[in-house]
Amino acid sequence: MDHHKTPFSGIKKDFHGRLQCYKQDWIGALCSGMRILAPTAYIFFASALPVIAFGEQLNRDTDGTLSSVETLTSTAICGIIHSIFGGQPLLILGVAEPTVIMYNYLYGFAKGRPELGKELFLAWAGWVCVWTAVMLCVLAILNACTLITRFTRVAGELFGMLISVLFMQEAIRGVISEFGVPKGENNTAEEYQFHWLYTNGLLAVIFSFGILITAMKSRGARSWRYGTGWLRSFIADYGVPLMVVVWTAVSYAKPADLPHDVPRRLICPLPWEAGSLSHWTVIKDMAKVPAVHVFTAIIPAMMIAALYFFDHSVAAQMAQQKEFNLKNPSAYHYDVFLLGIMTLMCGLIGVPPSNGVLPQSPMHTRSLSVLKRQMMRNKMVKCAKEGIKLEASNSEIFGRMHAVFVEMEPHPNSVVDKELENLKEAVMNRDDGGDAKGKFDPDKHIEAYLPVRVNEQRVTNLLQSTLVGLAVFAIPAIRMIPTSVLWGYFAYMSIDSLPGNQFWERLLLFFIPAGRRYKVLESLHASYVESVPFKYITMFTVFQLVYFLICYGITWIPTGGILFPLPFFLLIPIREHFLPKLFPGEHLQELDASEYEEYIGRPVQSMSLSRKEGCDESMENDFEMDSAEILDEMTTRRGELKLRSSFNDRQFHVSAEILDEMTTRRGELRLRSSFNDRQFHVNTEEMTTRRGELKLRSSFNDRMLHHVQRQNGPPA
Amino acid sequence: MDHHKTPFSGIKKDFHGRLQCYKQDWIGALCSGMRILAPTAYIFFASALPVIAFGEQLNRDTDGTLSSVETLTSTAICGIIHSIFGGQPLLILGVAEPTVIMYNYLYGFAKGRPELGKELFLAWAGWVCVWTAVMLCVLAILNACTLITRFTRVAGELFGMLISVLFMQEAIRGVISEFGVPKGENNTAEEYQFHWLYTNGLLAVIFSFGILITAMKSRGARSWRYGTGWLRSFIADYGVPLMVVVWTAVSYAKPADLPHDVPRRLICPLPWEAGSLSHWTVIKDMAKVPAVHVFTAIIPAMMIAALYFFDHSVAAQMAQQKEFNLKNPSAYHYDVFLLGIMTLMCGLIGVPPSNGVLPQSPMHTRSLSVLKRQMMRNKMVKCAKEGIKLEASNSEIFGRMHAVFVEMEPHPNSVVDKELENLKEAVMNRDDGGDAKGKFDPDKHIEAYLPVRVNEQRVTNLLQSTLVGLAVFAIPAIRMIPTSVLWGYFAYMSIDSLPGNQFWERLLLFFIPAGRRYKVLESLHASYVESVPFKYITMFTVFQLVYFLICYGITWIPTGGILFPLPFFLLIPIREHFLPKLFPGEHLQELDASEYEEYIGRPVQSMSLSRKEGCDESMENDFEMDSAEILDEMTTRRGELKLRSSFNDRQFHVSAEILDEMTTRRGELRLRSSFNDRQFHVNTEEMTTRRGELKLRSSFNDRMLHHVQRQNGPPA
Repeated sequence: MDHHKTPFSGIKKDFHGRLQCYKQDWIGALCSGMRILAPTAYIFFASALPVIAFGEQLNRDTDGTLSSVETLTSTAICGIIHSIFGGQPLLILGVAEPTVIMYNYLYGFAKGRPELGKELFLAWAGWVCVWTAVMLCVLAILNACTLITRFTRVAGELFGMLISVLFMQEAIRGVISEFGVPKGENNTAEEYQFHWLYTNGLLAVIFSFGILITAMKSRGARSWRYGTGWLRSFIADYGVPLMVVVWTAVSYAKPADLPHDVPRRLICPLPWEAGSLSHWTVIKDMAKVPAVHVFTAIIPAMMIAALYFFDHSVAAQMAQQKEFNLKNPSAYHYDVFLLGIMTLMCGLIGVPPSNGVLPQSPMHTRSLSVLKRQMMRNKMVKCAKEGIKLEASNSEIFGRMHAVFVEMEPHPNSVVDKELENLKEAVMNRDDGGDAKGKFDPDKHIEAYLPVRVNEQRVTNLLQSTLVGLAVFAIPAIRMIPTSVLWGYFAYMSIDSLPGNQFWERLLLFFIPAGRRYKVLESLHASYVESVPFKYITMFTVFQLVYFLICYGITWIPTGGILFPLPFFLLIPIREHFLPKLFPGEHLQELDASEYEEYIGRPVQSMSLSRKEGCDESMENDFEMDSAEILDEMTTRRGELKLRSSFNDRQFHVSAEILDEMTTRRGELRLRSSFNDRQFHVNTEEMTTRRGELKLRSSFNDRMLHHVQRQNGPPA
Repeated sequence: MDHHKTPFSGIKKDFHGRLQCYKQDWIGALCSGMRILAPTAYIFFASALPVIAFGEQLNRDTDGTLSSVETLTSTAICGIIHSIFGGQPLLILGVAEPTVIMYNYLYGFAKGRPELGKELFLAWAGWVCVWTAVMLCVLAILNACTLITRFTRVAGELFGMLISVLFMQEAIRGVISEFGVPKGENNTAEEYQFHWLYTNGLLAVIFSFGILITAMKSRGARSWRYGTGWLRSFIADYGVPLMVVVWTAVSYAKPADLPHDVPRRLICPLPWEAGSLSHWTVIKDMAKVPAVHVFTAIIPAMMIAALYFFDHSVAAQMAQQKEFNLKNPSAYHYDVFLLGIMTLMCGLIGVPPSNGVLPQSPMHTRSLSVLKRQMMRNKMVKCAKEGIKLEASNSEIFGRMHAVFVEMEPHPNSVVDKELENLKEAVMNRDDGGDAKGKFDPDKHIEAYLPVRVNEQRVTNLLQSTLVGLAVFAIPAIRMIPTSVLWGYFAYMSIDSLPGNQFWERLLLFFIPAGRRYKVLESLHASYVESVPFKYITMFTVFQLVYFLICYGITWIPTGGILFPLPFFLLIPIREHFLPKLFPGEHLQELDASEYEEYIGRPVQSMSLSRKEGCDESMENDFEMDSAEILDEMTTRRGELKLRSSFNDRQFHVSAEILDEMTTRRGELRLRSSFNDRQFHVNTEEMTTRRGELKLRSSFNDRMLHHVQRQNGPPA
C-alpha cells in the first residue's frame, strides 16, 4: 500500500486495477470447472459454523431479538455483494465475534433506556451502522488504509487473545447455564425439575467436552499414521462440522423417558415466522429514535468503525500475503469503502453487519493455491539437480528451469521474467564464497522463491455465500444441534486460535524450566526464542499480560465496556514511543516481528525413506493431500504463512545437526574417533553413489585447504 | 536356568545360593536408609490399586463372598512371607487377574451344584488350592522351571492381549451396569427410579472417561515440557493413584438433592464385620465337601497350577533380566515351591492366592536401579573419552575405567573383572577394521555393557506388603471411591498394557497405508519391521489373531471357560513344530524374538543444545529424574528392557542419518554441492574445536584412501 495524498485516489486506483482483471476473475473459475467445488465446500463449512454459533450467542444476549437467521442472512448478503462488486474476491466476509460483542453492549444500553428499550434497539443500532458507514467511507476516501501498516503484531495478538478468552468465557458460562433454568422460562415445567436440570447439565458436560476433544483431534488428521490419504484429509478439512453432526446424532440416542427438552437444543425462529420477518422494516422505526440517541450512536459507531477498518484490512492482508504471490492488485481502499456501504445496508434492514474474517480469508486463498505449486516445484528442482549434476553453468541451469516454468505456465516473457527474478538471482550467485551463506540449493531456494499459483476468481466466494444464504432454510436442521455442542465448539474455537499466537507461546515458555527449554528449540519455533535474551522476553510478555488484563477488565464494565477496542488503538503510540525506551531495537523487532519467522529445529525426516518400496507411488497417488499437508504445517492457525528465515536457520540447522552427530541420545559428546568414522561413512556413501570419486575427493580437500587458509591466513 | 536331573537339586541349589546373600539382603537396605522409602511407596501404589480393583470385581462375580478385604489380605500375607522367606526378594506378589477369572469360574461351578452351593464355594476352592499347591511343589521338585524357556513371545503376548481385552470388557460392562439396577437390589428404592439411574449412568461416563484420560496423560508426565523435574516425575510415578483420589474428590462435588447412593461407590465389607470374619474358618468346611468334588477340583487346579507356574516364573524372569545385572543368584525352583506352600495357606483360610505379578516386579527392580547407574556411567564415559583424546592405548583406557569403577564400587577384584569382562572386550578390539562394526564407542558400549547397579534387598518388598496389609484398615476410605472410577481404571489398565505388545503393534501396522509406513521407521520400532517382509508379518499376525479369537471365545463358555489357559500351553508344540513349516526360520526368529529388540529411528536430540546456558546445571540438578526418564524410555509397559540391536541399529542409524542429510524436509534429495558444504562445515568444526588440525585432516584422508582402495582393489 503506497501512500496517496489526494482523496479518492486510493479507491480510484484500486477500482481500475481490479477492473482490468474482472473478466478473468470469472473466466478463471470456469476453466477449472468442477474442481472449484472442493474449496467452495471447505470455506462454506469453515465460515457457516461460526456464524451459526454467533447467531445463537446473539440470541441469548439480545433476548431473541437477533438470531442465527440474521447472522446467516447478513453473511450471505454481504458475501454475495462482495464477491460480485468487491475488490479482493479472496476476502471472506462474515458476522464476527467483535460485532456480536458490540451488539451485546448496544442491546444492554438500549434496554436500559426507557426512551429506546427493546423495541427501538434495532433502530438505534441502525443509526450506529449509519455513522459507522460514514466513518468507514471517509477513512477509505482519505486513503487511511496506509495506517494499518502501523499495527504491529503486539496489537493483533492481544486482540486475538482477548477474543479467544471471550470464547472460552462464553463456553464456560454456557455449560454452567445448562444446569440452571434458562432466563425467561417458567421453572414449573417438568424439564426444569431439579433432577432433569442436573441430567441436562451432565449431558452438556459430556457433549461439550466430547466435541472439544474430537474436534481438536480431527484437526491434525492429515498427519495421522493410520487411514488412507483421502480419509485423513477429509477429516482434517471437514472434521469440525462432521463432529457437530456426529454429536448431534449422539444426542438423539437418549432413553424415551427423558423429557423432550433434555438435552436443550438451539432456539432460533424459523426465517418464515413472524419473529424474523417483523424487523426487516427497521428503517421505518429509525425515525422514532430520539434525536439525542441519534448522536449517542456516534460513540459506538467510532469503535465499530475502527474495529472493522482494522479487521477488514488485516483479513485482506492475510488473504494476499506476498508468499501467495497473487497476480491481481490489492484493493484495500475500495474494499473498505464497499464495507461502509454494506454496513449501511445491514443497519437499515436490521441485521448485524459482516466484515472480513480470520482465519477463513487466508484459508480461502490457501485452499485455492494447493494444487499447482507442488508439481511445478518438483519438476524444477529435478531439472535443476540434473543441471548441477552435469556441472552445467548457472545460466544454463536457470535456462532449463525457465523452460520448465514456461512450459507449465504459458505467459508473456515479461511476466515470467518478473516472477523468476529472485530465483534467477539466487541461481546466479550460487558460487559466491565457500560457505553456506547464499549458496544456491534448489530445494531451499526454489522452495523460497518459486511463485505459488493461486486460482484467483470470484466464483468460490459467490457460491459459498449463496450456500450460507441457503443455510437459512436449513434452520429446522440447525435447531437439532444441542446447545452444549455449541459450547464445546466455542471452547474449540478458543483453544484452536492459540497456537501460532506468540503472546500465548511466550506465556507457556514461563512454565518450561530453564533446563528443558531445549525442547522448544528442538521443535519448530519462532526466531525470537533464539535471538532474544530471556530477560527481555519476560519483560515484554509481562507487559503484554498486564495490558491484556486491562483490556479484559474493560469488557466487564456494563456499558463502558463498549470502549474495549480503545486500548488496542492506544497500543500504536505506546509501541512507537514507549516500548523502544524499554527494549533494544533489534530485540523489539524480533519480539514484535510483523511476520511469523520460524527456525527449523531438527529437519523432519518426513520422506527420508522415500526409496522404500511402496512409498514413492503412494506419494504420487495422494499428491494433493501431501501438498496440503505441507501447506498445513507452513501456516499458523491465524492463516499466517510462516517464513523459514533462510540464512540464520541454515546456520542453526547445520550447527544443530553437528551437535546431533556429536552427541549421543544420552547427551554426551561423542568422541572424535567415532565421529570421523561417521564422516568417513558419509563420504564413502558420497563417493560410491556418485560417479567421479576422485574428482569429488580432491574438490573436497581443496575446500578444506581453502578454509584452513581462511583460518590461518595465506600460507607463508 | 541350567538343567538339573535329580529331584530337589534345583531347590537346594537356589536355597543355598540365596542363603549366602541373605544377611546382605537386609543390611544392604539399612545402608541406603531413608532413600529406600521412595521405591517402597512407588511399588505400594502400583500393586495396591489393582488388588483393590480385582477385589471389587470378585465381589460382583461372587455375590460378595470375596472382596477387596480378601485380596488385600492375601497380597499382604504372601508378600510378607515371600519378602522374608522368598528366594528372589525383588519379585512382587499379588492377586492377579487370572486368579480372579479362575475364581469367577469356580464360583459359577459351585453355585450351579446344589451339593456345593454358595456356602461350600470357598471350601471347594480350598481343595482346588490344595491340589494346585501339590502340583506346584511337584513341578518345583522336578526342576520344571527349565521349561519356561520354551514359552516364546507369542504365548506371552497372546496372554497379555487376552487379559487386556478382558479388562476392557470389564470396564464396558461396568459402565453399562451403572445405568441399571444392580442385581440383588430392590428396585423400588428412591435412587433406582429411572431419572436417578440415568443420572448415575451419566456420572459414570464422566468419571470413567475422566480417569482414563487423565491417568493416561499423567503416565507420560516425565517427558512433559512444562513443570519442574520433581513435579513431573512425581506425577509420572503416582499419577494414577493421584487421579483416583482427585476423581473421588470430584465425585463428592454433587448437589445435596442427589440421593446418597448416586454416584455408586465401592461395596466391600469392613474387615471387622462378621461378613469378612465368617469365612476365615473355611478349613473346617473343607471336610463337608463331597468326595467327588474333592476330585473335580483337580481340573481347575491343573489350570491354575499351570498359570501360576508360568506367571510366577516369567515375573521373576522379568524382575532379573540380565540387563539389570543382579549380583545375587536366581531362585526359580525354590520360589515356585514356596508359591505352592503359600497357595495352600491361602486356600485354607479362604482367600484367593497371590502370585508374581507383571509389570510390578520389573518396576520394582527398576525403581531400585535408577540411582547408582547414571553417575558411574557418566564418570566412566568421561574418563574413557579423555583417554581417547590423549590417544591412549586401549589397555590404558580400560585401566582408567577399571579404576573409576573400583573407586565407586569397592569389590574384590575377581568380581569386578567378571563384571567388566564384556566391556573390556569391547574396549580392546576397538580398532579392528576401518568401518563402524564393533568399533569402540564409549557411549554406545559403556551404555550396553556397564553393569546396572540394583540395590538388592528385602526391605522394600516387606514394607510395601505391610502397607498393603494396613490398607485393609483403610477400607472405609476405599469405600469412598465411586465404582465408575474403577471402570475407568480397568480401561486404563487395558490400554496401558498394549504398547510394547508386538502383537498389538503389528495389528496397528495393518491400518497404516503402505505409503506412510516410513512413519513407523522414523520412531523407535522393533527390529522385525525392518527385517521381515510385510507378507510374513501379515501371515503371522493373522495366525495370532485367529488363535486369539479362539482363546477369547473359550472364556465365554460358562464352566468350560475354565480351560482358557489350555490354548496357551498348546502354543508350545504349535510354535515348535507347526510354525517353522510356514515361516522361514530367521523371520520367525525376528517375529517371535524372546527379547524386545528395537531400532533407533532418528537419534533423539535430547541434549543437543546442552551447551546452551542454564541447561547443563539443570541436568545436574534433576539428575535422578533424568535417569528415571531414560529408564522409562528403555522399558516397555510390560517392564521389558528394550535392547538396541547394536550393530544393525548402528548401520541403520547411520544410513538414516545420511538420508536425513541428503533429503530435505520435503523429501527430495539434496544435491551434492550443498551436501559437500555440510561436510565441509562439519570438518571445519572438527578442526577448529580440536587441536592438531592437520594431523586430523591427514588421518582423515588416509581413512578415505584406505576405503577407496578397499573399494577399487589395491592401486595398480
